Amino acid sequence: MIVVMKSGTPDAEITRVSDELGTWGLSPEKIVGQHKVVIGLVGDTADLDQERIQELSPWIELVLRVEQPFKRASREYRHGEPSDVIVQTPNGAVPFGEHHPLVFVAGPCSVENEAMIVETAVRVKAAGAQFLRGGAYKPRTSPYAFQGHGESALELLAAARDASGLGIITEVMDTADIEKIAEVADVLQVGARNMQNFSLLKKIGAQEKPVLLKRGMSATIEEWLMAAEYIMAAGNPNVILCERGVRTFDRQYARNTLDLSAIPVLRELTHLPIMIDPSHGTGRYQYVPAMAKAAIAAGADSLMIEVHPNPAKALSDGPQSLTPERFDRLMQELSVIGKAVERWPQPAPVLA
Amino acid sequence: MIVVMKSGTPDAEITRVSDELGTWGLSPEKIVGQHKVVIGLVGDTADLDQERIQELSPWIELVLRVEQPFKRASREYRHGEPSDVIVQTPNGAVPFGEHHPLVFVAGPCSVENEAMIVETAVRVKAAGAQFLRGGAYKPRTSPYAFQGHGESALELLAAARDASGLGIITEVMDTADIEKIAEVADVLQVGARNMQNFSLLKKIGAQEKPVLLKRGMSATIEEWLMAAEYIMAAGNPNVILCERGVRTFDRQYARNTLDLSAIPVLRELTHLPIMIDPSHGTGRYQYVPAMAKAAIAAGADSLMIEVHPNPAKALSDGPQSLTPERFDRLMQELSVIGKAVERWPQPAPVLA
Amino acid sequence: MIVVMKSGTPDAEITRVSDELGTWGLSPEKIVGQHKVVIGLVGDTADLDQERIQELSPWIELVLRVEQPFKRASREYRHGEPSDVIVQTPNGAVPFGEHHPLVFVAGPCSVENEAMIVETAVRVKAAGAQFLRGGAYKPRTSPYAFQGHGESALELLAAARDASGLGIITEVMDTADIEKIAEVADVLQVGARNMQNFSLLKKIGAQEKPVLLKRGMSATIEEWLMAAEYIMAAGNPNVILCERGVRTFDRQYARNTLDLSAIPVLRELTHLPIMIDPSHGTGRYQYVPAMAKAAIAAGADSLMIEVHPNPAKALSDGPQSLTPERFDRLMQELSVIGKAVERWPQPAPVLA
Amino acid sequence: MIVVMKSGTPDAEITRVSDELGTWGLSPEKIVGQHKVVIGLVGDTADLDQERIQELSPWIELVLRVEQPFKRASREYRHGEPSDVIVQTPNGAVPFGEHHPLVFVAGPCSVENEAMIVETAVRVKAAGAQFLRGGAYKPRTSPYAFQGHGESALELLAAARDASGLGIITEVMDTADIEKIAEVADVLQVGARNMQNFSLLKKIGAQEKPVLLKRGMSATIEEWLMAAEYIMAAGNPNVILCERGVRTFDRQYARNTLDLSAIPVLRELTHLPIMIDPSHGTGRYQYVPAMAKAAIAAGADSLMIEVHPNPAKALSDGPQSLTPERFDRLMQELSVIGKAVERWPQPAPVLA
Repeated sequence: MIVVMKSGTPDAEITRVSDELGTWGLSPEKIVGQHKVVIGLVGDTADLDQERIQELSPWIELVLRVEQPFKRASREYRHGEPSDVIVQTPNGAVPFGEHHPLVFVAGPCSVENEAMIVETAVRVKAAGAQFLRGGAYKPRTSPYAFQGHGESALELLAAARDASGLGIITEVMDTADIEKIAEVADVLQVGARNMQNFSLLKKIGAQEKPVLLKRGMSATIEEWLMAAEYIMAAGNPNVILCERGVRTFDRQYARNTLDLSAIPVLRELTHLPIMIDPSHGTGRYQYVPAMAKAAIAAGADSLMIEVHPNPAKALSDGPQSLTPERFDRLMQELSVIGKAVERWPQPAPVLA
Repeated sequence: MIVVMKSGTPDAEITRVSDELGTWGLSPEKIVGQHKVVIGLVGDTADLDQERIQELSPWIELVLRVEQPFKRASREYRHGEPSDVIVQTPNGAVPFGEHHPLVFVAGPCSVENEAMIVETAVRVKAAGAQFLRGGAYKPRTSPYAFQGHGESALELLAAARDASGLGIITEVMDTADIEKIAEVADVLQVGARNMQNFSLLKKIGAQEKPVLLKRGMSATIEEWLMAAEYIMAAGNPNVILCERGVRTFDRQYARNTLDLSAIPVLRELTHLPIMIDPSHGTGRYQYVPAMAKAAIAAGADSLMIEVHPNPAKALSDGPQSLTPERFDRLMQELSVIGKAVERWPQPAPVLA
Repeated sequence: MIVVMKSGTPDAEITRVSDELGTWGLSPEKIVGQHKVVIGLVGDTADLDQERIQELSPWIELVLRVEQPFKRASREYRHGEPSDVIVQTPNGAVPFGEHHPLVFVAGPCSVENEAMIVETAVRVKAAGAQFLRGGAYKPRTSPYAFQGHGESALELLAAARDASGLGIITEVMDTADIEKIAEVADVLQVGARNMQNFSLLKKIGAQEKPVLLKRGMSATIEEWLMAAEYIMAAGNPNVILCERGVRTFDRQYARNTLDLSAIPVLRELTHLPIMIDPSHGTGRYQYVPAMAKAAIAAGADSLMIEVHPNPAKALSDGPQSLTPERFDRLMQELSVIGKAVERWPQPAPVLA
Repeated sequence: MIVVMKSGTPDAEITRVSDELGTWGLSPEKIVGQHKVVIGLVGDTADLDQERIQELSPWIELVLRVEQPFKRASREYRHGEPSDVIVQTPNGAVPFGEHHPLVFVAGPCSVENEAMIVETAVRVKAAGAQFLRGGAYKPRTSPYAFQGHGESALELLAAARDASGLGIITEVMDTADIEKIAEVADVLQVGARNMQNFSLLKKIGAQEKPVLLKRGMSATIEEWLMAAEYIMAAGNPNVILCERGVRTFDRQYARNTLDLSAIPVLRELTHLPIMIDPSHGTGRYQYVPAMAKAAIAAGADSLMIEVHPNPAKALSDGPQSLTPERFDRLMQELSVIGKAVERWPQPAPVLA
């Protein structure tokens, strides 16, 4: 931490602030500039609250953090090595991570009935997916929109899991539901709207299933990593980060702005695996192929793509869903890029 | 709803879409333009999902909603009249609303100990506040920052309520805590980060205490009103809306951008009372007075202001807190504007 | 400036960077932290380019500016005192500034014909305005929209000036037009879209008429002050800053988000006078009164308000214009707030 | 266009509005809904100003544009076919467009001296670039930062053109400079800050050299295409669109957010060629390779990349520049993706 004092701060005040910070177990060192005095704080400052320092004195102009506020999520925490998040599925263990082949997650926005979810699972598996996504509990802007079939949809997901051997990823919206969802799901998803639902993060961090953490609609990269830190600090190291588009000033054509630069930025900052969701990220199925290819070229570890057997009849998110046929074609197209960057799963994407 | 068909859509497809919409209980009417055909949907479309229509046909260019998606929260729902949210406090009933005097809510970000919360309560009451705010459960970006004293802080709030007669407003972060918080609080707060925590909205809508709903950091006005609609649809009509700054590209000086234009916009759209929080809205105590005055001039019904007996020692949000002395002075300054717009509580702000 | 070296930087590299910075006329001072070394730069760093330092070494983690990058625009430049921008008008000199009464600028978006501009001038003067605004050259999103009457409109503005005695404010869009506009206008306006048209800023800074500098649609406060710095560095100290709404994620009801917190922020940072434009800031005439009142309460020095004798027939910006009758009423309403904050022009707003 | 009347609009007013619109050469058709009346406007509405309609009556709730506001820039204008922008260079004609190989533009932010610009030109040509970028006139946030060498730099660009045979792309900031820049440059660049400098757009549209139009920092896709429309309407059809990052709430790691979804969106809307600038788009050279690869995978027609022989000594934009060695390596990496998508220039990228 670096504390910048306002120009004209009395010497006595600078001494007082330094002394106070000394009592916090830090070693303050003073640099006297032409106009301003700066105090460098030597010691373990990662847990320090920037704002508490600022309020030590009205003469403090600003407090600058030099160390990153996240620890367990940081690349340094693993000495520069990426982590593998390995998920057990009926078809075997699937590893997510920088040194592993691409992992594909596909399926509908919400689970509608047994036939559609089983059919989708079988179809996306045939096309190369290792995981089925599908919402039992759906966050919807309107209370009058379809809210998901809830608990009964969990059984349908279990049936689809049995039928296809795919792993299941589904969203948790309420701390009260964690346990029953964890019985069925192989990966628990925290949605964008709940990225800073800290109660949920803590409780999901206290259970053992891997967690897919979507980026909040207007969350900074740092806030997102701090949300991961909540889960990891609660005991669960198996976090996968998923970029799904951020909110900007332009929502006329693409519904969100998919921030693919998050890939190289995260790669530098964290060891956690990175997933991209071009379906929510753009909001329109026509834009999904271009952005899926771009995500692979940029180095994503995994993709999540919405597929619905009949998007025109989908109970939610129809306009961004691909048909199974389009998904087949997309996987063919993606394989060209995936092979070029040597991340395509060959010949079988799952570990025994 | 208005459905715009792409230019070149075959007549048979237009007929098919019209017929399908007819089976949904709507009366579609066709306008044939020079390049495009437009279908107007007559009937009760408020519950209709725009996206489901869009996916009826790949020939649909766009679906435009003409009616607002919120009902209970709309101004029309009360035939243009504002609603009064009346809160019972030890000092009497306090009404929030357009035809009532300003209501002031003040207090610290978090409840730290009994002495500080009781002292703050007594001080802000003397200055003119009717409600004490104070967090027992605190949403913090970092898992390593102070998280609030939780349940034990609720008792301290109860003590401050007894000592001062002020109503209590405190935040609920987890559906599991609603009941115990509702025993102490007079108003339950949903924080910005939970504005689209739909599980929380539904459960808080199913209990009887009035609800303070903060606007999400990047929530549109419409999403915010839809969040209010969740609470109201669940049975609780007593919702107060609180603007607390939105996230924009510039966070260097003010931490958020306080969107005061929300006041005239909401006045037009909804009957619900409007509160402004200039403390979170700017993030710096120096900017609070200017924005508090502006809020009153723009027509706010209530203000929420952070006050801490010793901001330099505050466990959270110190930089945006006023000392009790500064709050006294601010209330003097605000009374000038409040009297000019004839909203100042005179002589006593509470009903018997 | 503060230079933070990456953890693990070799000592030799730290020495090399320090030595290099020493050759730039700075006195580098080193603080050795637990993980990182920080170099404080003592000396006149205001003109230093942050990025050039960053590139001295790949071991530099970040370069933090402690001093503000603007000088002439800074509050310190005038030792904490506000500046007065005094504009000569036919009716006398009108001062803009913190210690002066409010100044009102009113008029149509664009000059349409002599009758309408003269009528508007006479009407807004009667209501209390000291300046007439009106565009001869109009920045329009579409090349097919009305672009302003150009040079011939300047004569109409001159006629309105003669008829009313009001000062004239009009926009310059092209460096080639500065001279002829300066013959008629009392204040030259740089529009939001040209805030970083640096050629225009330099040339407008090289002439003598006062300049109204609108904030760019997504300009930070710092970029805006740097744009003012361009004008001032070119020799013209008479700059008035005008906030007119910034671009955010929500444009459904208000077209822009009027950032009133710019008022207290600018007051702290700069000595320049502050104007607010609630007409462009909201984009709808219904929201203008609330935001105009708020601007005065927050401490604005001046307001710019669109008035058109017949908004329904306006060639541009109709929806945000007030009729002269509504403007009369608005001025009555504003006087209540203006008097309360002791900024209302009494009895005559112009100096002899 | 579709005009939605407020609920409760008197019949006479609806008739009046319809009649008025009829006098504009349109055929209004009325749909009577349950709550509202909607008027569809049949006829050529592309040139119509949405806002002028809105102001016809206070009973108009909203006016919805169904047709796109751009014509010459629209995909329909060329019956769905992409356009080729063919640029003459000393090495031959280089076509930009969807059906052509990738075109690479590389070079420093600003032209510093003859040796560096010639060396850079020779190096980037050897690596596969067809164009040299380099600023003679530089838009800089601070008036105290290096502003470019101006006219004398144009001669240096001419020398680099002669030495390498590369085409030259350089920025125009002032209408007064167009002619002399057009003597040297093969493509004239309009920078992000001038995207809505309409005077510049009109004058650059009136000359013959192809134009590279960068997207404004917070310009919507529609505004960007309207800026292209200005150039095209002035007579110059040869416009290349360049995405260079938009401004969002998060600027901590990547300086801007590179909006790659602009690629599929533009492909759908316009026939114009699409260039991506990952250097400005991220602001850090480390992130350039990932985003350059992603851009190619997503379907970009061209890339602009900053290369400087010694970024540590660059007079501007050092942190985002690659060294020539890194650029060589990057081109190798890009060729893998470029070949996979069959857009890599083989064997020679220029036409005879």
